[in-house]
Amino acid sequence: MNQINRVAIVGGSHGNELIGVYLIKKFHKYPDLIQRSSFETLSLFGNPKAIASGSRYIDKDLNRCFTGDNLPDDKISIYEELRAREIQAILQPQNQDCVNAIIDLHTTTAKMGLCIILGNMHPLLLRLAAHLSAINPLVKVYSHQQPRNSGFLRSLSELGLAIEVGAVAQGILNAELFQKTEQLIYAVLDYFEGCNQGKIPQHNNTLTLYQSIGAVDYPRNEDGEIKAMIHPQLQFRDYQPLHPGDPIFLTFEDEEILYEGESIVYPLFINEAAYYEKGIAMYFSQKEVINI
Amino acid sequence: MNQINRVAIVGGSHGNELIGVYLIKKFHKYPDLIQRSSFETLSLFGNPKAIASGSRYIDKDLNRCFTGDNLPDDKISIYEELRAREIQAILQPQNQDCVNAIIDLHTTTAKMGLCIILGNMHPLLLRLAAHLSAINPLVKVYSHQQPRNSGFLRSLSELGLAIEVGAVAQGILNAELFQKTEQLIYAVLDYFEGCNQGKIPQHNNTLTLYQSIGAVDYPRNEDGEIKAMIHPQLQFRDYQPLHPGDPIFLTFEDEEILYEGESIVYPLFINEAAYYEKGIAMYFSQKEVINI
Repeated sequence: MNQINRVAIVGGSHGNELIGVYLIKKFHKYPDLIQRSSFETLSLFGNPKAIASGSRYIDKDLNRCFTGDNLPDDKISIYEELRAREIQAILQPQNQDCVNAIIDLHTTTAKMGLCIILGNMHPLLLRLAAHLSAINPLVKVYSHQQPRNSGFLRSLSELGLAIEVGAVAQGILNAELFQKTEQLIYAVLDYFEGCNQGKIPQHNNTLTLYQSIGAVDYPRNEDGEIKAMIHPQLQFRDYQPLHPGDPIFLTFEDEEILYEGESIVYPLFINEAAYYEKGIAMYFSQKEVINI
Repeated sequence: MNQINRVAIVGGSHGNELIGVYLIKKFHKYPDLIQRSSFETLSLFGNPKAIASGSRYIDKDLNRCFTGDNLPDDKISIYEELRAREIQAILQPQNQDCVNAIIDLHTTTAKMGLCIILGNMHPLLLRLAAHLSAINPLVKVYSHQQPRNSGFLRSLSELGLAIEVGAVAQGILNAELFQKTEQLIYAVLDYFEGCNQGKIPQHNNTLTLYQSIGAVDYPRNEDGEIKAMIHPQLQFRDYQPLHPGDPIFLTFEDEEILYEGESIVYPLFINEAAYYEKGIAMYFSQKEVINI
């Protein structure tokens, strides 16, 4: 990639994740905040109807709808599938410059802190992630690689990333995390500006990465109802090592369920509200230090 | 009141407050847990449709629908108004014993800890509250007096109380708070059993009470949109004194808004998700120590 010409910031892909929603409102009111001299920055709401109703989505999760299918518009009746198509048309207009980079803003009820989720292992994304974690040690980097057309907004662009901050409940603003998210966005934009101007800050050549190795569901009964909760000793312990034999769930009858794997894993997205319906209690990851 | 004959425990009056929902499921599975020798205990789901959809309510907040109106059923089209009538028929059947006491289970995104909300100042409720805070110093007591027919479920009974625990996000279970809520319910039932048997435990004759003195809304612009967030220094500081001149809100432009009252107040329900739409950023209360 020679030059970054257009960057998109999307907030409110989930309508009840308010930090992204109110950051986009702020950027619409003060567009200079996100303009840089060497590229154009768009800011847009992901799911306006869900934002208006204060819910994650209307018909289905928008952030699983960017699948690049070829159905004609009149065959689509799901609101989020139509909205995904609209967003794609804005970010990738025919016969015009496409957006080179996407920053998708999210919050989570898990204690994910300030997390950068990389959609792929593009070298520039890795250097960006190393830079962000060098200037702010609270920044963590999670790699959840998805094929193109996997449905995630970030998968539309080679330089696609999500910012996930938490823990914050759905439907509320948290001022401290609002400010930290805002500063992280500016740091990403400044880094792209530096790339375009040939002045790439280089702090170190290693990056600590949490690499997804799969999702773990809650224990469930034959009717699909959950039988256990996240164990109190695991709650809010994202990024901490889980050892074989450590407690992971607690049944409603107060029985501990232990982690029976054979190696240390690093759980992430522990107890995210929106994942109950997806059958995900947490993700397991491996902690890796990679050279970049 | 001579004898408590029937007690009702209601969970899931709000469908996305999962601790109450899963406690009712547990009590349905193990009814002995809530039976006591001197009275009958009912347990029921408040809002089954909202529980199924994972939302607070379908049409309107159930916990504002117990108004005791006299409309005929066929004039009611709002789901929660019909459900409120069904619940009232269960708790107050004609020509049968009414429920003497109601325990309504809630969670909040505010850091309310283990909070007992008293619907009125009935002497037995005050003694119960003093007992609960004596056996567990984490228990706080909030008095938000409402006239009968004010719409709250707890207002249906002389011995009506709500248990509000937090901070917990909507749509998730928190195992630690689940267990603490469960123990608090058993302590209430045991106290009623003691009353019936003439063995009322008496720890002390004072009670620390947070008495509501009104709601405070977010600063809003002419379109009704909020202009500021809870200040980081106030977030999660429920029950702590707010002094004149202390910061209370932070605008999206990073300007502090100070508390301009003339006396110390004790904010509660700070940043409760469901109250954004009600125009409530927090309640102010006075801290009182009363003799009982």
